[in-house]
Amino acid sequence: MNPNIKPYIERLNALKFDDMYQNDFLLTWEKTDQEIEALFTVADALRHLREHNVSAKIFDSGLAVSNFRDNSTRTRFSFSSAANILGLAVQDLDEGKSQIAHGETVRETANMISFMADVIGIRDDMYIGKGNTYMREVAKSVQEGYEEGVLEQRPTLVNLQCDIDHPTQSLADMLHIIHHFGGVENLKGKKIAMTWAYSPSYGKPLSVPQGVIGLMSRFGMDVCLAHPEGYEVMGEVERVAAANAKQSGGTFTKTNSMQEAFQDADIVYPKSWAPFAAMEQRTDLYGKGDMDGIAALEQELLAQNANHKDWECTEERMALTKGGDALYMHCLPADITGVSCAEGEVSASVFDRYRVPLYKEAGYKPYIIAAMMFLAKCENPQQILQELAKQGEQRWMK
Amino acid sequence: MNPNIKPYIERLNALKFDDMYQNDFLLTWEKTDQEIEALFTVADALRHLREHNVSAKIFDSGLAVSNFRDNSTRTRFSFSSAANILGLAVQDLDEGKSQIAHGETVRETANMISFMADVIGIRDDMYIGKGNTYMREVAKSVQEGYEEGVLEQRPTLVNLQCDIDHPTQSLADMLHIIHHFGGVENLKGKKIAMTWAYSPSYGKPLSVPQGVIGLMSRFGMDVCLAHPEGYEVMGEVERVAAANAKQSGGTFTKTNSMQEAFQDADIVYPKSWAPFAAMEQRTDLYGKGDMDGIAALEQELLAQNANHKDWECTEERMALTKGGDALYMHCLPADITGVSCAEGEVSASVFDRYRVPLYKEAGYKPYIIAAMMFLAKCENPQQILQELAKQGEQRWMK
Amino acid sequence: MNPNIKPYIERLNALKFDDMYQNDFLLTWEKTDQEIEALFTVADALRHLREHNVSAKIFDSGLAVSNFRDNSTRTRFSFSSAANILGLAVQDLDEGKSQIAHGETVRETANMISFMADVIGIRDDMYIGKGNTYMREVAKSVQEGYEEGVLEQRPTLVNLQCDIDHPTQSLADMLHIIHHFGGVENLKGKKIAMTWAYSPSYGKPLSVPQGVIGLMSRFGMDVCLAHPEGYEVMGEVERVAAANAKQSGGTFTKTNSMQEAFQDADIVYPKSWAPFAAMEQRTDLYGKGDMDGIAALEQELLAQNANHKDWECTEERMALTKGGDALYMHCLPADITGVSCAEGEVSASVFDRYRVPLYKEAGYKPYIIAAMMFLAKCENPQQILQELAKQGEQRWMK
Repeated sequence: MNPNIKPYIERLNALKFDDMYQNDFLLTWEKTDQEIEALFTVADALRHLREHNVSAKIFDSGLAVSNFRDNSTRTRFSFSSAANILGLAVQDLDEGKSQIAHGETVRETANMISFMADVIGIRDDMYIGKGNTYMREVAKSVQEGYEEGVLEQRPTLVNLQCDIDHPTQSLADMLHIIHHFGGVENLKGKKIAMTWAYSPSYGKPLSVPQGVIGLMSRFGMDVCLAHPEGYEVMGEVERVAAANAKQSGGTFTKTNSMQEAFQDADIVYPKSWAPFAAMEQRTDLYGKGDMDGIAALEQELLAQNANHKDWECTEERMALTKGGDALYMHCLPADITGVSCAEGEVSASVFDRYRVPLYKEAGYKPYIIAAMMFLAKCENPQQILQELAKQGEQRWMK
Repeated sequence: MNPNIKPYIERLNALKFDDMYQNDFLLTWEKTDQEIEALFTVADALRHLREHNVSAKIFDSGLAVSNFRDNSTRTRFSFSSAANILGLAVQDLDEGKSQIAHGETVRETANMISFMADVIGIRDDMYIGKGNTYMREVAKSVQEGYEEGVLEQRPTLVNLQCDIDHPTQSLADMLHIIHHFGGVENLKGKKIAMTWAYSPSYGKPLSVPQGVIGLMSRFGMDVCLAHPEGYEVMGEVERVAAANAKQSGGTFTKTNSMQEAFQDADIVYPKSWAPFAAMEQRTDLYGKGDMDGIAALEQELLAQNANHKDWECTEERMALTKGGDALYMHCLPADITGVSCAEGEVSASVFDRYRVPLYKEAGYKPYIIAAMMFLAKCENPQQILQELAKQGEQRWMK
Repeated sequence: MNPNIKPYIERLNALKFDDMYQNDFLLTWEKTDQEIEALFTVADALRHLREHNVSAKIFDSGLAVSNFRDNSTRTRFSFSSAANILGLAVQDLDEGKSQIAHGETVRETANMISFMADVIGIRDDMYIGKGNTYMREVAKSVQEGYEEGVLEQRPTLVNLQCDIDHPTQSLADMLHIIHHFGGVENLKGKKIAMTWAYSPSYGKPLSVPQGVIGLMSRFGMDVCLAHPEGYEVMGEVERVAAANAKQSGGTFTKTNSMQEAFQDADIVYPKSWAPFAAMEQRTDLYGKGDMDGIAALEQELLAQNANHKDWECTEERMALTKGGDALYMHCLPADITGVSCAEGEVSASVFDRYRVPLYKEAGYKPYIIAAMMFLAKCENPQQILQELAKQGEQRWMK
């Protein structure tokens, strides 16, 4: 069973994406529509190769450096899977949560870990204004290091979740949507509800809803952002979503009613997050070292949360959606009522009905990350895909 | 110096072991005699290839996930060595000791870590009724994930030690015995004494003695289990040993006398373990979160232990064995009197005389684990061994 | 762009270094001048291959075991980079700071981790008289294990920093000097000042200054060791430096004046370290478990340190050097005045002017470590380099 890589190559031939070569992936809205399409195409092509047991190793050796400032199982495994597919070994840096380095230290460490690094993946989503900024400092540092002759290759930065965006998540989500609806051409006019949902836990990152509205608004869909009053996301990303919607012929609307969001939705994405303003405040408190202030803020937010326990994705709400069977999405793990907590984001029966699609949704992430690396590392991806398919090196001698 | 892989292939040709393909390795007594023999044969074949500097990589890429709930150096290195021999990269999950996940969480995590996983190795030996159960939950979850199309391949579960069995240890031990006595055909009627020994430490796992009596009873040997009163092992495994002995033409006997066990023994395996009943009690206390109860139990067990300091493998006792030179075995590290503790499982002079064979015993483990992976991953192992030998890819350009 | 490996091979052909095969790298002064030159040559050759995108994998599989008793980012990444270049997977042992194993335990653990280990890298620099001794115990253990048939291959020990020497650092530093001055033949009579500098932190290891004077004294340079009274380094290493200087036609001098050291220096290496005598005392206190004594000693040393804040590498002092532009060196991270601390080893303006050369200096380390492994693992390195160049396996399909 030989892989048929031709359709992917032909699709790539029609696209312009040469700026992705030797470049980073930090925010989806920094990429053109054609670049996003190239990414999806390469992700699908890499999956196609693997399904046909053909190796996609473009590296004989080399390192993929991971730097997780926060615990992570899913993203860590996705990153190491992506590295492994392409032939890179993972070396963890893991600087820890507390230490937020600046200036000289960032520049120096970035170079010191990069002598053999082809990729650096960073997850830093704890503090508003910090994570993405840190990634840009690292990117700038290795770019300079490369230009100054310190580094023999320029490692590519991959944003594995920051304070603003979570591109590997939103792109995996989007590729799931595309395949679910049989192609991007079927998405025009579809309604997607990115809605807040109650969780007993505190301070879940904003990068998921922000990533979703910042990306999903590019495909002509009607993106509806729903949350209780006070749970606003970053204004800057809302403006991105509005501009995207306008350009793509879709809409971007907001509501404080979960019902309204679910009404006739084709896709629902109910998920807890913390208010942006509160997260900004937390960052300030952290900057001042005011740990009592942080503890007080946490109590305040938990109390505020408790007022919105009715924001749950129930069967009743699912019944409001288009044909009663909208695609339910989540980045996982979800807070499931009666399973992982007493009252949560989603009722057990809804979650259970969508378990398989949810797992499949997650399964796109390793390929999305691998595609980010591939496009940053191959000057002519079509030719490399062609070579890989032709070599037909078995991944696994069965 | 070309490898001569033919004898191994011929031996495999005479055996039926096709159920091992795409299957897990959880308890030795779930495998047939021919499957166990196939495992030993493949372990020896992989060693033969390596000794002749021939690569046994059957994977060009892929992940071996390790999940150690307990500290481990030996088994961790054996697992990563086995993965490395076959071409897999290790990715650690390491969920930690305290967190014993259930149901939805196990199912979800098992799938999330398995998108690119070919093997999952788990060590979970802390609580009676938990470790093996957890492994079966993971195995069931990835089986379902594979059938539902979530996973492109079905990762193989390898039991790296549970509450019931320690198959990678007992099989490495057994392969050591086979080679020491010049073949499995020489084992009929040999006496092996699996005996309790004193250690100042608390709560050593039962999986080693259980694994040993559950496996060694299959080869026509006289298996003698010795321990002070009150140090009974799991009844279920004793029944396995008795049934095995009957079927293989050997015997399975029990005694409360270390002397009796050593008398005319060909092999002695003196090692500390905790009473099964006490370990069940500990699990209940843990379930109730009764940490004071656990601490009290520990004191009680240490006091009980101290009554049996005379259960030591001394030169005097070794003199009772067949010809005075039984093969001394241990899973390591041993508590050596006057070396690692004041009073322990074995006297320094006995341990020292057997140091080299003990190290060799341990050296079988990476090959046993690699053979478990190999047989689960190759539909036709004979053909793959043939190909590897024929390719003759150098492991190391010397 | 094919690699031209011939010059490297010709240089190696003129050298005698066969004792490096199957041997360890623990102290630079245990190696002959020709062995050191072979090491530099192989390091350069491996870099040449990589710059030409040619794989230097001499291992198809195998493990490089790392054992860091102390936190380390730079050396850890250098070690894993070196392993990766040659095709080895890294497996961390990381026994932890506190546990200093002895005798039986060292021997056993060394063998248990080495069944598939081709290299073991150890960093153990905390206590005088311990680190290097431990490495020798490990080396002896695996040598015995190999001879006794326990191990199929003899893993090579690489000293990643001990209490006496830091060979991977000093050799990387030296290779930087050689390339900076256009060849080892240009170093005769050059003055290098290895000088103490103030840092607000406590107990920085002696292995860097010791490693530098122990190595740099071999090339006909004038090595000047400068420090305040009371900051003497290990006498044994001073004697090595003096003997080296004599033999190489250079000099080894000492002074208690930073000015004097900088005067007309071609190279300056200002860096903080702890007094050797105090570190010996700390080791004794540690041996007695006297933690109060250790805390008191720390206070005493910090107070002593504070008397020497004027030992800073300033622009004024740099102006004293040869032509005012000596090569400034540091093992990084440096304590930079006004950047990483209020008062430190070097002024910000000096550091900043030398940032690029400093980063390049660090960039030699992965190649130095890889060359140590290469020379220990290849019986005929010239032939292997030739084969690698001829194969021309792409490291990265661009």
